[in-house]
Amino acid sequence: MEATTDARVPQKLTGKGQATRARILEHAAELIYTKGVHATNNEQLRRAAGISGSQLNHYFPTKESLVLAVIAWQAERVLTFHRSERFSHFDSLDALREWAGFYIAYEHSYQEGCSLGSLASEIIKTDLDVRTELATAFEQWRDIFRDGLERMQTLGRISAEADPTRLAYLLLSAFQGGMLLAQIARDIAPLKDALRAAIDHVQTFAMLPAADGLEDR
Amino acid sequence: MEATTDARVPQKLTGKGQATRARILEHAAELIYTKGVHATNNEQLRRAAGISGSQLNHYFPTKESLVLAVIAWQAERVLTFHRSERFSHFDSLDALREWAGFYIAYEHSYQEGCSLGSLASEIIKTDLDVRTELATAFEQWRDIFRDGLERMQTLGRISAEADPTRLAYLLLSAFQGGMLLAQIARDIAPLKDALRAAIDHVQTFAMLPAADGLEDR
Repeated sequence: MEATTDARVPQKLTGKGQATRARILEHAAELIYTKGVHATNNEQLRRAAGISGSQLNHYFPTKESLVLAVIAWQAERVLTFHRSERFSHFDSLDALREWAGFYIAYEHSYQEGCSLGSLASEIIKTDLDVRTELATAFEQWRDIFRDGLERMQTLGRISAEADPTRLAYLLLSAFQGGMLLAQIARDIAPLKDALRAAIDHVQTFAMLPAADGLEDR
Repeated sequence: MEATTDARVPQKLTGKGQATRARILEHAAELIYTKGVHATNNEQLRRAAGISGSQLNHYFPTKESLVLAVIAWQAERVLTFHRSERFSHFDSLDALREWAGFYIAYEHSYQEGCSLGSLASEIIKTDLDVRTELATAFEQWRDIFRDGLERMQTLGRISAEADPTRLAYLLLSAFQGGMLLAQIARDIAPLKDALRAAIDHVQTFAMLPAADGLEDR
């Protein structure tokens, strides 16, 4: 694989070069998210980012190099969001409910689906050589949930009988499947029901707080 | 919409015409399932089905008419399979486990994913006018699970407190999301974990059989 197909910012770029590359990437990610990867072409991207064809070719010589960079960009965004303080590393049922509530209220959920999952679905059958990058991103995403569930066990919030890997895949699958069904129905209900049921299931493993740990609410 | 874009077999076709149309459709569905809708072109389809360009154009004048017919074909297959005696209308936990076991053992699950869901994911962002057909198919699929869960309640197998719609969306989302994650990972584990956890959740609503209904096992 050529260095230029690497999703990371090439070291040799100047500050201005890095800014141009970042601008192209941001517009490419937006176009691909709203229109799909197959309907996004060079001309739309050049117009949206305000760059020439030779500039685009300089930073992303092939569609594969561009798609790889967009995967890396979307993966970093989604993983960073999930690791943010807002969800306190998913170490409680409340954090899971906060997360579900965000996506249920997010209007893009049923319009364009998951920024990473919808892209993955569109290209998984093509011959673009991007599967390894997708697999790594989704493993990291699963690990965020699994680590949180393991922490809940350590903290005595859920039973040691729960299987954190199984529950992590339930949460991530309910999210991805619910996003697809919501897009097809143009209605948030399938995502809402799937996420709430998945979290209901985690809750079936909840431990009653010890008597000396009871709080007012 | 022109009559020829209708997924149903046009009434005016002769027996031979219907057979030709069915052969084209079968090959189109197979090509789209394995290669994806964007990578499937007329030439491949003509070669696979052994037909001329004018024949193809006669039965499916546009890509949209072909995709609509493939959606109808795949939807009928998946709905018929789910309605088969094998799953006894999903009126028991064993039926749900039988269903999950089938897809976990099915090698195409992590190779090509769900025949209907993967197609939906590929085209949901395109401007093909097929969303209504997809939405109807997925509603019917959800209803199969929901009806089964309602029957389980009537039969006293699961609690009246269970929400059949919510559980139906959990099962269908876990299936669709698990299929996507399995394809990305090239490993059945995500689907297996997601389906088993979803069914575990339905099981949390299981009722103990009445004393006079106890069986040997």
